[in-house]
Amino acid sequence: MHGVQSSVIRDLLKLAQRPGIISLAGGLPSPLTFDVEGLKNATQEALAHEPARALQYGLTDGQPALKHQLARLTSSRGATAAEDHIVVTTGSQQGIDLMARLFVNPGEVVVVERPAYLAALQTFALAQASIRSIDTDAHGARVEDIDAVLDVAAANGETVKLIYVVANFANPSGATLSRERRLRLLRTAVARKIFVLEDDPYGELRSFGTPVAPLIALCSEVPGAADWCGYLSTLSKIVAPGLRLGWVVLPPAVHDQAVICKQSMDLHTSTFTQELAARYLASGRLEARLPSIRTAYRERNEALAAALERHLGDRIVYNRPEGGMFLWARLSQEIDAAELLLHAIDEGMIFVPGHAFYADAPDRSTLRLSFATPAASELDEAVRRLARALDRSGRHTTTPAAT
Amino acid sequence: MHGVQSSVIRDLLKLAQRPGIISLAGGLPSPLTFDVEGLKNATQEALAHEPARALQYGLTDGQPALKHQLARLTSSRGATAAEDHIVVTTGSQQGIDLMARLFVNPGEVVVVERPAYLAALQTFALAQASIRSIDTDAHGARVEDIDAVLDVAAANGETVKLIYVVANFANPSGATLSRERRLRLLRTAVARKIFVLEDDPYGELRSFGTPVAPLIALCSEVPGAADWCGYLSTLSKIVAPGLRLGWVVLPPAVHDQAVICKQSMDLHTSTFTQELAARYLASGRLEARLPSIRTAYRERNEALAAALERHLGDRIVYNRPEGGMFLWARLSQEIDAAELLLHAIDEGMIFVPGHAFYADAPDRSTLRLSFATPAASELDEAVRRLARALDRSGRHTTTPAAT
Repeated sequence: MHGVQSSVIRDLLKLAQRPGIISLAGGLPSPLTFDVEGLKNATQEALAHEPARALQYGLTDGQPALKHQLARLTSSRGATAAEDHIVVTTGSQQGIDLMARLFVNPGEVVVVERPAYLAALQTFALAQASIRSIDTDAHGARVEDIDAVLDVAAANGETVKLIYVVANFANPSGATLSRERRLRLLRTAVARKIFVLEDDPYGELRSFGTPVAPLIALCSEVPGAADWCGYLSTLSKIVAPGLRLGWVVLPPAVHDQAVICKQSMDLHTSTFTQELAARYLASGRLEARLPSIRTAYRERNEALAAALERHLGDRIVYNRPEGGMFLWARLSQEIDAAELLLHAIDEGMIFVPGHAFYADAPDRSTLRLSFATPAASELDEAVRRLARALDRSGRHTTTPAAT
Repeated sequence: MHGVQSSVIRDLLKLAQRPGIISLAGGLPSPLTFDVEGLKNATQEALAHEPARALQYGLTDGQPALKHQLARLTSSRGATAAEDHIVVTTGSQQGIDLMARLFVNPGEVVVVERPAYLAALQTFALAQASIRSIDTDAHGARVEDIDAVLDVAAANGETVKLIYVVANFANPSGATLSRERRLRLLRTAVARKIFVLEDDPYGELRSFGTPVAPLIALCSEVPGAADWCGYLSTLSKIVAPGLRLGWVVLPPAVHDQAVICKQSMDLHTSTFTQELAARYLASGRLEARLPSIRTAYRERNEALAAALERHLGDRIVYNRPEGGMFLWARLSQEIDAAELLLHAIDEGMIFVPGHAFYADAPDRSTLRLSFATPAASELDEAVRRLARALDRSGRHTTTPAAT
C-alpha cells in the first residue's frame, strides 16, 4: 500500500448524516429511482425457478443470462458487444482495479483527466502507477495535449500503459468528450500502443443534447483501434448501486487475461445479484423507466443551475453538464474551497472541494456539486447556504489559491 | 500479470458438465444444503422494510447489521471479534487478495502449506509474491519447519511478509492443524514479526473429533500475537457461495489499512446480499440447520472412505479428514495422477491431480477427491470408476513420478 488515502468523499458522507445538513457531496443515486417492485419480482423469480443456479458458485466472466442482457444494453448505446467479450465485475470500481492490475506494473504510467474520478486515482495509486494528467475543458479531456505528456514520459524512460477517461458527463468535471476528441484519442492509442479505457457510468443519464458514440463504437472508424480500447459501465446509476454490478467489454486477448486476473480477485461476482439483474433486465422494466430516471436527474440538473444563477451569479463559473450527476465549478475569487467547506458545514450544506480530484497541481478554488440525491427545493436551499458560506469566506480568506 | 494461470479446477469443471461424468473435482457445496426458503424470506424482508438501504451504496467495511451477525458467528467459534475489527469481503477469495495487496510487494515472500489452496497460490502469484512452502502431515502444516524456511529467506535478503494457512480440514490436504502447532505458529509470528492469516472456510463442517480453537482465539495465550494474526471466513460453505460474502477479522491498525485498500478494489461488497444475509443470520435458521449440514457432509465423508476401502484398498494412501469437503490421497504406485485423470475421464469420473496444489516440488502421485457434491451412491460409483482407471494406468504408465 503506497500513496493511497481514504476518500475525502467517504469521510464527508459521514458528515452528511448530521441532521439538517444538505449534501451536495455524494454521488448517491436518488432512491426514488430504485425499482423496488421490479427487483423484488426478479429476485423471487430467481429463487423460485432456479435457486441452485442463483446460490451456487458461478463463472468467473459472469452468468450467461446477465452477459446476454449486458451485451444488449451495450448495443443499445451504439456499440456492438459480443457476449464473450464481456467480464461482469463487482461494480465498475472493480473494473478499474482489474484494468489497473492487468496493465500497470509499479512505476508505469497511467494518463487521466485533470480533474479525474477520485476512486480511479486511488486505484491507480494502489497499483503504484505513476499518474499523469491532461487538462479538461467544456468538451472533455484536451486530447490534443496528450502527445506532449507521452513524449515527456518517453524521454524519462517511462512506459505508458493505460489512458483512463470518463467520456460522458465526467465525474467530477461534468464534461462530455467530443466526437472529434474521441476519434483522436483512438488514433493516439493505436499509434502509441496504449490501451484506452472508457468508463461510462452516467451515459444513460443524458439531460440535454445528443448522445456521442462510445469509443468502442468509434473503433470501426480507426483501423487497429479495436485492439486498444475497452468499455466499462455499471448498473449502479440506472438500477441500484447495492447490487455491485458492473461490466467491461474488452478485446479477446485482454478479455482472457482479465478473466484469469478476476478469478484471483474474487472468483466471480455474486451469482445471486447477477441472476436477479438478468431477470430484471429481461423484464423490460428498465427501458420503461429510463425516461423518468432521466427526467428526475434533468430536473435536478436544471434546479441546481437555476439556484446557482439565483444565489451566486457571477461569483461562480461553471460549464453546464449535459447529464450525469455532477456540476464542476470554480469560484471567481481565489478562495480555497476546502476553507469554504468549513463555513458551508456551519451553514448546513456540504460539497467536495475540487483539490481531491487532482493527481497533481490542484486548482484549490474548484468544487464539485452533486445534484444526484437532493430534491429540487433542497438544491435551492443548499446553494443559498453556500452563498452565505461564501460571504463569510470572502471576508476572512487570505490564502492565495494555487492554479 | 505474472505467473498466473487459469485454474486447473475451473477447467475441469467444464468437463464435469458432460452427461454421465461424476465429479470429485469441484468444491461446490451440495445444493441440498441451500436454505432457499430462508433466503427468500430474508430477501423479501430486506426489500420490504428498508429497500433503499439494501439497494444504495454502503460502507466499505460492511453493513453494520451483517458485521454484528458475523461477530456473533465468529464468537461462537471461540474467538471474540469486535464488530469494528471486521471487514466484509466479496467472498473469502477477496479476503486473500486484500491481505496479499496489503502486505506483499513484488518479490516479497509468502509462506504457504505444501500442498496449498490453489486460488490462494494464484492470488499470491498475481501479487508477484515469492512463494515458499512448508510440508504438511496428518496434523497440518509442519510449523516446526518454518524457521528453516525463514532463515533461508533472511540469508537471501528476502522479506517475509505473510504466512497463510487453512487450519481446519485444509483444501486440499484435509488436515487439521493441531493446537500445539497453532500456538507455535503464533509464537513464530511474534518473534519474526510476520503476519499470519488463518483462512477458515470449512471450520463449521466438522464430521468427527473435537474443534480446535482458531488462531485468533489462541492469541490470548501468546503475548503480542494479537497484532500479528488475522482470521478469514466465509458464508459460502454454510449458507451459499452465490452470495459472495466473506469476512476478515483484523487487528485495528491492519483493519484501517484494509478498509482503504478494499475501497479501491470494489468500494464495498454488495449491500443487497449483505442486508439479506444479516436478516438470514438473525433469523436463527442457520444454527438450526448446521447440524443437518454437518451430517450431510459427514455421510459423504464416510461414504468416500468406505468406497476407497472397498474398491482401492492399499492402492491408495490417505489421512481421513475430520471434516470439510476434501480427501487428499497418494497413489501407492508411482503413477502420475494427471495421466490417471485421462483414464478416469474415459471411465466417467474426474478429480483434481495433486500437482496443481504445489507452489514448488509437486508430488505428482497425489490427488484431491472432493466429497462435497455427489450423493453417497455416486461417490461409490465414482471410486469404482477410479479403480478401473487405475487398472488401465497401472498397465501403461512408464513415467516415474517426482517426489
